Amino acid sequence: MKKKLIIKNGTIITLDSENRIIDGDVVIEDGVITQVGERIDYPDAVESTTEETEEPEKIDATGRIILPGFVQTHIHLCQTLFRGSADDMALIDWLKKRIWPMEAAHTPESIYASARLGIAEIIRGGTTTALTMESVNHTGEVFRAVDESGFRAIVGKCMMDKGNDVPKGLREKTDSSIAESIRLAEEWHGRDDDRIRYGFAPRFAVSCTRGLLEQVAHLSVKHELMVHTHASENLDEIRMVFKATGKRNIEYLHDVGLTGNRSVFAHCIHLDDYEMELMHKTGTHVSHCPSSNLKLASGIARVSEMLERGISVSFGADGAPCNNRLDMFTEMRTAALLQKVLKGSRTLPAWRALRMATIDGANALGLANIIGSIEPGKKADLQLLNLDHLHTSPHPNPVSAIVYAADRTNIETVIVNGRTLMRDGILTTLDESQVIEKGKYEAGRLFERIEL
Amino acid sequence: MKKKLIIKNGTIITLDSENRIIDGDVVIEDGVITQVGERIDYPDAVESTTEETEEPEKIDATGRIILPGFVQTHIHLCQTLFRGSADDMALIDWLKKRIWPMEAAHTPESIYASARLGIAEIIRGGTTTALTMESVNHTGEVFRAVDESGFRAIVGKCMMDKGNDVPKGLREKTDSSIAESIRLAEEWHGRDDDRIRYGFAPRFAVSCTRGLLEQVAHLSVKHELMVHTHASENLDEIRMVFKATGKRNIEYLHDVGLTGNRSVFAHCIHLDDYEMELMHKTGTHVSHCPSSNLKLASGIARVSEMLERGISVSFGADGAPCNNRLDMFTEMRTAALLQKVLKGSRTLPAWRALRMATIDGANALGLANIIGSIEPGKKADLQLLNLDHLHTSPHPNPVSAIVYAADRTNIETVIVNGRTLMRDGILTTLDESQVIEKGKYEAGRLFERIEL
Repeated sequence: MKKKLIIKNGTIITLDSENRIIDGDVVIEDGVITQVGERIDYPDAVESTTEETEEPEKIDATGRIILPGFVQTHIHLCQTLFRGSADDMALIDWLKKRIWPMEAAHTPESIYASARLGIAEIIRGGTTTALTMESVNHTGEVFRAVDESGFRAIVGKCMMDKGNDVPKGLREKTDSSIAESIRLAEEWHGRDDDRIRYGFAPRFAVSCTRGLLEQVAHLSVKHELMVHTHASENLDEIRMVFKATGKRNIEYLHDVGLTGNRSVFAHCIHLDDYEMELMHKTGTHVSHCPSSNLKLASGIARVSEMLERGISVSFGADGAPCNNRLDMFTEMRTAALLQKVLKGSRTLPAWRALRMATIDGANALGLANIIGSIEPGKKADLQLLNLDHLHTSPHPNPVSAIVYAADRTNIETVIVNGRTLMRDGILTTLDESQVIEKGKYEAGRLFERIEL
Repeated sequence: MKKKLIIKNGTIITLDSENRIIDGDVVIEDGVITQVGERIDYPDAVESTTEETEEPEKIDATGRIILPGFVQTHIHLCQTLFRGSADDMALIDWLKKRIWPMEAAHTPESIYASARLGIAEIIRGGTTTALTMESVNHTGEVFRAVDESGFRAIVGKCMMDKGNDVPKGLREKTDSSIAESIRLAEEWHGRDDDRIRYGFAPRFAVSCTRGLLEQVAHLSVKHELMVHTHASENLDEIRMVFKATGKRNIEYLHDVGLTGNRSVFAHCIHLDDYEMELMHKTGTHVSHCPSSNLKLASGIARVSEMLERGISVSFGADGAPCNNRLDMFTEMRTAALLQKVLKGSRTLPAWRALRMATIDGANALGLANIIGSIEPGKKADLQLLNLDHLHTSPHPNPVSAIVYAADRTNIETVIVNGRTLMRDGILTTLDESQVIEKGKYEAGRLFERIEL
């Protein structure tokens, strides 16, 4: 028996290769988009009374925008509880004095609460898929939260086998880091109709041995798994890598075999020409995190130049303690505005930013054939927006309204894999007040454990 | 008979000179804050039954933040209808090809609808006072919208008596521009318990004759009225001023007598050292508009340097077509993040940004003795926030939460002059859906008039 959902009479911003906008309907069967078009003639009354047929669910989208869900290519769900606890610091101090001690203090209960808080926030904000780097321990709890929520994610356990400043509890042995990664991949990769995937997550070159990085490169090919790491976010980080390896960061990551179409490097702010060429040549994806890059004073990435060179660039909010939002509207808008002030007012127009937030993100995660646009054959990862709010009125151009003016309050309904995760502003798989209360409680207990 | 309002049991972020945060109550009588403190013993039951006594209105603020309303020091209410109609352009083109033709096409009906849409949006976003530059014509309609809404504003009719590219209908004769300004000031300045004020608004040096600017300088002293203009937003603008006057912009404005404690200059992005010194020496106020400065590719103002020099800097969203939001949370956060990436992660911390958004804005408008902080003797311009939302949880530091994470959805109640303009998320003086519908209708008609 097929489960059918018809979204009727909306303005469909397809994000297909021609950026078509269609006034019409979307038909979804068993989580897959089967038809997109003007007034689809779908039988209203079901004639047969056999058990194989089910009355299709309908959503009236009159006056609404139907948009693909956003795809974030760099977040840390485990850090959501640290929001507001690490402000006004630069990367290396921020990691050593705050983030690592807080991550080390996580229990299974606190990391589960952190992931649920982050997932609830980003579903409410229209993000339907994320690539997320977790902490060294308890990553199974994050998978459990993703699984229960209905959210689509590629999750990786953080790998850290190097560094004297890494607190006890986070520092691992190379072999056990890899063994635990493989164990999690075997347990979770491909679960629930391939909604949940595993991605290796070596933290960054500073906290990983060459041996670990080389093994990850080898294993990602062998098991066809993504690699998610940080690269060239901060000048101190780059100096540390150079001191340890004699190479610039991207060169080194290329050397150990980590560049390639299956890899997402977060930040990539300080790349020289040769590193840009390496990113392009190898098809390595950049996750641009404009808010985090500003707040940690890391720098402004040369996104328009990367795009001109044909490098794949998508967006991530990064973690709550360095943003402090997990909101795609903020990232799209901030990215577009920053490139304008660097390169002129026509740079990164609304359409370009919206593609980066949807289909380009899907492409970075190897999911462009599955999600990122509204086309027959793709999974139904969608959001319905109402632009008739004060802050988005008037809206002569819906794409401009979405990128420059809208925010999560415009979103009414969010669907992942054909399943409604938010309907008319109410989350369906997560109890919002319980998630908030539990998050506050576990954050309080975590801060007590480390006496911040 | 005094009208009394007691807000009980909140966390009061006073923004007083010591940045005190008090857990307690605020007592308001006839729109004026009379008491601020822990558990004020205010008679619950009113003993007397004479007609002079009225049961005080009470708001339970348990678990809520009580914050001064935001003060925006540079907006254009008349441009709200132009949102989304002038994207991806730089200042001079943006003005000549879009903004001026659209302003020239305004009717009394369309400018009134534009002002109401803008006022409704910014009340919902916690802004309780604004300095707003309107268009050349129909400014009385904006005053009427401000008057009816209960919002506090200093409004000025735009003055433009120079420039061949200025469309017919906006270009004025010097004398009539001044006469109309004085007429509006006489009609509106000081209305409704001084909630509404007049401020002269010569557009910028490019579109005003020297004679006009000198007369405005003279009249602002004579009538004790503010002056609100744009300055040094864009390099082309600066070149035009230099070509016409042989002086850099701020020098020229100083020369004609427009610098001083009663003046707000919007943008001030490209100032040299001498111009900075002039701003400081004369006490001229800068309105920093970070979003607009990025979107029009104007530049990033050297705010932290201005603050170090002791220059008064506050925030404005500017108009809807160059932002495209009218939201103080966006401006505070963007300003703080931009200065960090320029000058280091500790620059413009949350407290500093929050002062700029409240008391420093009040100071720029000559209203620091009246609004901008929660202290006995000041007018009750307040907002109540609930931080227990997903995107602001946890919130170990409420000031960090407000500046870096919060948005208008955290605001429940907004009060101006002791009058509640939004209560539990519902606007009380404006019919939100009517304002949206009317705005869309008038925008559509306006676009037809100019065939954009």
